[in-house]
Parts: sequence; structure tokens; C-alpha cells
Amino acid sequence: MARWQPHAPERLVVAALDLFEERGYESTTVIEIAERAGLTKSTFFRHFPDKREVLFGGDAMAGLLAGGIADAPATATPLEAVAHALDVVGREAFTAERREFSARRRVVIAANPELREREALKGLGLTAAMAEALEERGVPDPASRVAAQLGALVMALAYERWCGPAEETAFGEAVRQALHQVRAATAAS
Amino acid sequence: MARWQPHAPERLVVAALDLFEERGYESTTVIEIAERAGLTKSTFFRHFPDKREVLFGGDAMAGLLAGGIADAPATATPLEAVAHALDVVGREAFTAERREFSARRRVVIAANPELREREALKGLGLTAAMAEALEERGVPDPASRVAAQLGALVMALAYERWCGPAEETAFGEAVRQALHQVRAATAAS
Repeated sequence: MARWQPHAPERLVVAALDLFEERGYESTTVIEIAERAGLTKSTFFRHFPDKREVLFGGDAMAGLLAGGIADAPATATPLEAVAHALDVVGREAFTAERREFSARRRVVIAANPELREREALKGLGLTAAMAEALEERGVPDPASRVAAQLGALVMALAYERWCGPAEETAFGEAVRQALHQVRAATAAS
Repeated sequence: MARWQPHAPERLVVAALDLFEERGYESTTVIEIAERAGLTKSTFFRHFPDKREVLFGGDAMAGLLAGGIADAPATATPLEAVAHALDVVGREAFTAERREFSARRRVVIAANPELREREALKGLGLTAAMAEALEERGVPDPASRVAAQLGALVMALAYERWCGPAEETAFGEAVRQALHQVRAATAAS
């Protein structure tokens, strides 16, 4: 077995998504995912704790959001700081090349209750990370939680638009549209 | 064994909370909960699917919230309709007699990751139920989701205050204070 395994996590994620589409999430084993990626089961478990986690790799997104909030201009309101972070996410994670993969991933997750549950919990983790990053900017609780909740909704709406069927909108543009919608709805609440 | 088992769910919930406090959630079995309540394991499973569910009994809260939103005055804004539903919750579920139990339950849940996860998912279910009830009032998406998210935050803040240590605030009054806080934070976002 080759000891050098370039891009092992990416290969495992792609193999997993292919197999989940072909056979369904329930009917796919970790061994099959590793084999399809040309890797071993132990390599899989070096990168992911279990099969469910393979589509939710790590805490990169929480880090991007926290960093983007920290780097927002000092004059930004809490929700503007979140929007700044979502722009960073659009440039560094939800790029045009990533759209097709994200759309396929979204369909697989929607089809499985266990994956939907994991996604929901990951979303709560991201919301908490945003609230914490806002508090580090000096935004008090509960203003931090309000802005994080609204920001999570902006992110969800932008993501739905960005990787919806037949979409060509860049994530950053989808964020601007969603922010406008959420602000209008907030004002009418 | 007596066939008539009055208040079996309530007795099971009280027994479970006692045991979780005494021994910890992990170290308590379903059989022990049933025995403490003077009931059998099969009675337990008639009322709850598993040990984790015993502190999250059923969908009564989602029903209260949906009913309260449906019954709000036609002139109410979306968030006012949610606040109306939270008043119903304060009268019918989070009453003064319930406060001590809720405070103990909250401490037990906070101490266990599995229970925190279940509570987080239950919270998402309540938010979805509120959004759906708002849509049935004619509130379009995403305004429905915005109001439901803000309402969920009002509910969380009011609940924290209502069953916090040494509190005497009624749930309805805690809702009014939380609504004021969330509105102020929203305006500054």
C-alpha cells in the first residue's frame, strides 16, 4: 500500500457521495467508500470518525465564519459583520467549481433522516460560532444571538439559491439578495 | 400488576429526573426508571420510545405553539403572533407550579451531550412548527422563517429567565421582556 495518499479526504468525500447516490446512504459501507477512493478503511478513519461525518468534514466552515466576522470593518453592524464573513465563505468555499458537488450533496442529505439530523446540528454549531465571534467583537448577548440567527438564515437562503437547480448566481450575490429579504422580513416582524 | 396506571407518563418523567440527578443520565436504566415509578418496562415503552425521550415528552409544545399562532388576532404581525402563542405556553405549560421541575430538568440536560443534542433538535422542530403555522396565516417564506427564528430566540431567552436560579418572573412576563430585547437587537443589526 502506498504510504503517500494525496488528497485522501477529498477522494473519500467524492467516493462517498458517488456511492450514496448510486446505492443510498444506508446501503453503503465505510469499506466500500475507501475501496472506491483507492484507499483503506484505516485511512478513512484517520480523516472521519464515522460514515455519517464524511459529508460534513471538520470545522473549516466555523473557522471561516469566525475569521470573517473578526476581520469585518469596525463600523459594521453585527449582521453586516456576518454578511462580510459569508462573502469570505463565497470566495473560499462555495466557489463556482464547488456548486455542482454541493447541489448533489444537498440532494443526498435531504433523502436521509440521519444526515438531515447531522446537518441540523452542524448548522446550530455554526450559529453558535457566529454568536461567539460577534461577542469577541464586543456585541453583547442577546444581540449577538439575534444577529447570528438572522445570519444563519441568510446563509441558508443563499445556499438554497446558490446550489438550487439550474442556478448561476454566485454565492456572494445570493448572500446580498438573502440579506435584503431577511432585513425586509425583520422590519415587518 | 395493576392494569389501571394513573398518570403513568408524569410518574415516569418524575422518576427519570430524580434518577438522572442521583446517578447521572448514563448510569440510569429504563428498568430502574420504571421501578422507581412503580411501573413496568413495557409501560415505559408504551409512552416513550427510549430513555433519551423521557424528558422531551411528545409533541404537545409544537401543538400549543401552532394553535397559539393560529388563534392570534388577524392584525398581529408575524412576531406578535408568535408572542401570542408563547403567552398560551405560559398559561398552559410553563406555569408557576412547573418552574422548579423545569429548572431541575434544565440542569440535567445541560450536563449531558446526548440530551443537549436531543434538545437542540427538538428546538429546531418547534421553530419549523412555528414557521409552518405562520405560513398557514398567509405569511410568505422567508418572512415566516425570520419570525419563527426570532420567536424561537424569544422563547429561549424567556425560558432561561423563567427557570433561572432564584427567579420569580412569570413566563408571560419573561416573554415580554425577551421580545423587547430581541426587537431592540434586531433594529440594531
